[in-house]
Amino acid sequence: MARIVMKFGGTSVADLDRIRNVAARVAREVKAGHEVAVVVSAMSGVTNQLVKWCGELAPLHDQAEYDTVVATGEQVTIGLTAIALQTQGVQGRSWLGWQVPIRTDAAHGKARVEEIDGAALIAAMAAGQVPVIAGFQGVGPDGRVTTLGRGGSDLSAVAIAAAVKADRCDIYTDVDGIYTTDPRIVPRAKKLDRIAYEEMLELASVGAKVLQTRSVELAMKARVRIQVLSSFADLPGSLVVDEDEIVEQPLVTGVAYSRDEAKVTLRRVPDQPGIAARVFGPLAEANVNVDMIVQNLGADGTTDMTFTLGRADLPRARQVLEENRPSIGYDSLLADPAVAKISIVGIGMRSHAGVAATMFSTLAAKGINIQVISTSEIKTSVLVGAEYTELAVRALHTAYGLDGPEAPPAEGK
Amino acid sequence: MARIVMKFGGTSVADLDRIRNVAARVAREVKAGHEVAVVVSAMSGVTNQLVKWCGELAPLHDQAEYDTVVATGEQVTIGLTAIALQTQGVQGRSWLGWQVPIRTDAAHGKARVEEIDGAALIAAMAAGQVPVIAGFQGVGPDGRVTTLGRGGSDLSAVAIAAAVKADRCDIYTDVDGIYTTDPRIVPRAKKLDRIAYEEMLELASVGAKVLQTRSVELAMKARVRIQVLSSFADLPGSLVVDEDEIVEQPLVTGVAYSRDEAKVTLRRVPDQPGIAARVFGPLAEANVNVDMIVQNLGADGTTDMTFTLGRADLPRARQVLEENRPSIGYDSLLADPAVAKISIVGIGMRSHAGVAATMFSTLAAKGINIQVISTSEIKTSVLVGAEYTELAVRALHTAYGLDGPEAPPAEGK
Repeated sequence: MARIVMKFGGTSVADLDRIRNVAARVAREVKAGHEVAVVVSAMSGVTNQLVKWCGELAPLHDQAEYDTVVATGEQVTIGLTAIALQTQGVQGRSWLGWQVPIRTDAAHGKARVEEIDGAALIAAMAAGQVPVIAGFQGVGPDGRVTTLGRGGSDLSAVAIAAAVKADRCDIYTDVDGIYTTDPRIVPRAKKLDRIAYEEMLELASVGAKVLQTRSVELAMKARVRIQVLSSFADLPGSLVVDEDEIVEQPLVTGVAYSRDEAKVTLRRVPDQPGIAARVFGPLAEANVNVDMIVQNLGADGTTDMTFTLGRADLPRARQVLEENRPSIGYDSLLADPAVAKISIVGIGMRSHAGVAATMFSTLAAKGINIQVISTSEIKTSVLVGAEYTELAVRALHTAYGLDGPEAPPAEGK
Repeated sequence: MARIVMKFGGTSVADLDRIRNVAARVAREVKAGHEVAVVVSAMSGVTNQLVKWCGELAPLHDQAEYDTVVATGEQVTIGLTAIALQTQGVQGRSWLGWQVPIRTDAAHGKARVEEIDGAALIAAMAAGQVPVIAGFQGVGPDGRVTTLGRGGSDLSAVAIAAAVKADRCDIYTDVDGIYTTDPRIVPRAKKLDRIAYEEMLELASVGAKVLQTRSVELAMKARVRIQVLSSFADLPGSLVVDEDEIVEQPLVTGVAYSRDEAKVTLRRVPDQPGIAARVFGPLAEANVNVDMIVQNLGADGTTDMTFTLGRADLPRARQVLEENRPSIGYDSLLADPAVAKISIVGIGMRSHAGVAATMFSTLAAKGINIQVISTSEIKTSVLVGAEYTELAVRALHTAYGLDGPEAPPAEGK
């Protein structure tokens, strides 16, 4: 007998038929002898409507009132899911954030979970009940409803799994697992049986649509085993676990990409101590996140400084840099939004040399020029022209032996 | 400066424009220097959709889950209304039932308010805030969400007015007050400036669409002055108050009617002690409410017993009476669903004789046969053929001097 938290996203509870389907899945686990707690999102589309109403009344509205409004989406789903469970002979019982309670800080709209008292839920499960808990919501220090921000239901599920000491947190979604890369680009991408928390965090471009980053961070910290699986197909999913649980560690677990990048080069910046602070200080103040940075050695007391940032931030970055041109003292600013970041990720890279070299030679063989390189312990990223994205991802996927069989993976969509 | 509770029903908050209109009305009272608390219903149509979902999942569903689902309707409205107030420079702040708290018993779906702690709301108003409170909902003894049943938002408003010791509870609705009778039948019906609680309770057929009966009972008990007025027109409404506040007491305040009646006659019932218990006991057990009762004196040791009940209950009543025919011992059962109950109501009837006699002679002059008569301290009701409903109401409205000017009343619809 295991204790499992089962989380169902908005598309999995989009209408009454799907809610019945969720109830059937939960009932199966209960009848198999497991203790189960369920976390659900709002029916898909509902949250968007509520957000829209708040925005139409006032573009800059009180976030506490916003939270009161949007938290109703999950409240509807928990009640309906509990009723659906009862029709299948399972003692479903709804729990709102404040009833558990799921205590958060006061940052309405993007609150952080501070403490979950799992005692009442554990007692309910011991009494044969299946708690159905509203995802995405909690209660702030002043007793008002808070929400955790978009994708917050994943975070709720992981936090609850930690609080009730669950053996596993199953995240049901509309894909059936985590892939070695985006199957839309590489049809021979393979579903991963297991992936380490650290890898999952780095594979953002593959995983972001599947798992919210903060929920993976929390799972890693609290050592909650996550399974990502489809609520529409009846297949095992992908486990996100501690690296100790992964017996065969491949050198590279996955290939990720991001098209949302832009490259900025400042030409002929004075090559002096403190220059980086004068460039990146004002950008940070303007909430522009800089990712990769390279600085070439200059010959005449100046240097070229190149860095990447989110493409959406480019206009703001350009404005900040132009305003600060007198204090920085660069010659000209070149911006290139037609770039993509390609990354290989794998915990095996820690202990094996030469992994990055294969990346560089593979891209060279395809005639792809590498503009910037950055590395971390388990990731190597390169910046290339945006038009090479698919070619680069496919070539690397093959080079690291990640290709699966010819047939497209079963996605159950 | 007064302290006012303003309650807005579903049609008054049906969309964002109407919510803005509500906010403007509240802002006007606040700017006039009053302390205001607002109670709102769900946007019209929303509750019906939520109820429908519960019913589709399971016709007999868990009422606690039903409450969790349907209470979201009001939760959305309070957040949106608070945002709309803030755009008008008023410090609106939403309050859910459990946050006030509005404590109820555990009768989910039709809970009774047991206690409201007004301290937090009074403190909020003293601090210049306008609490916007979810109607229709509370929190049960076990900390779960409860709802008060249909029309429960009126009850919430009156109970909150009592808890915060408000000078007045203004119920904004889609009619502009309480009339001497139904204006659809009598275009010359007059809006009443004031009406006593007791009269309002008796005038159910005029008032039921306007004010929920339980809310009037509570207002009478807690001495909360209610004003019924239109949220669309800018006119004074009708005050429901203690009779001491009504200076000129007319003999008859209003004429009410009900078409939802049916008449049952049991022929040749044994004229013995205990016979009434044998007839009405089984009906009460089957939850059939009997209203008017007459028993004619019999000649041969038998009597005819006639009574009225809700028309919807007629099939059940017939079944119960046929099952109990051996123990009752009647000869035959006659049922007539084509009847209407016409009532005159007025606290002036207490101190004046002959009021009912005018009723009988007026109906006789129109050739309307009276089938059953019943009286209470401030009401006289007669049962007539259903086809005489309009004729009877109009004749009585004229006879008691209630007709207003020729022009139809301004209704602001």
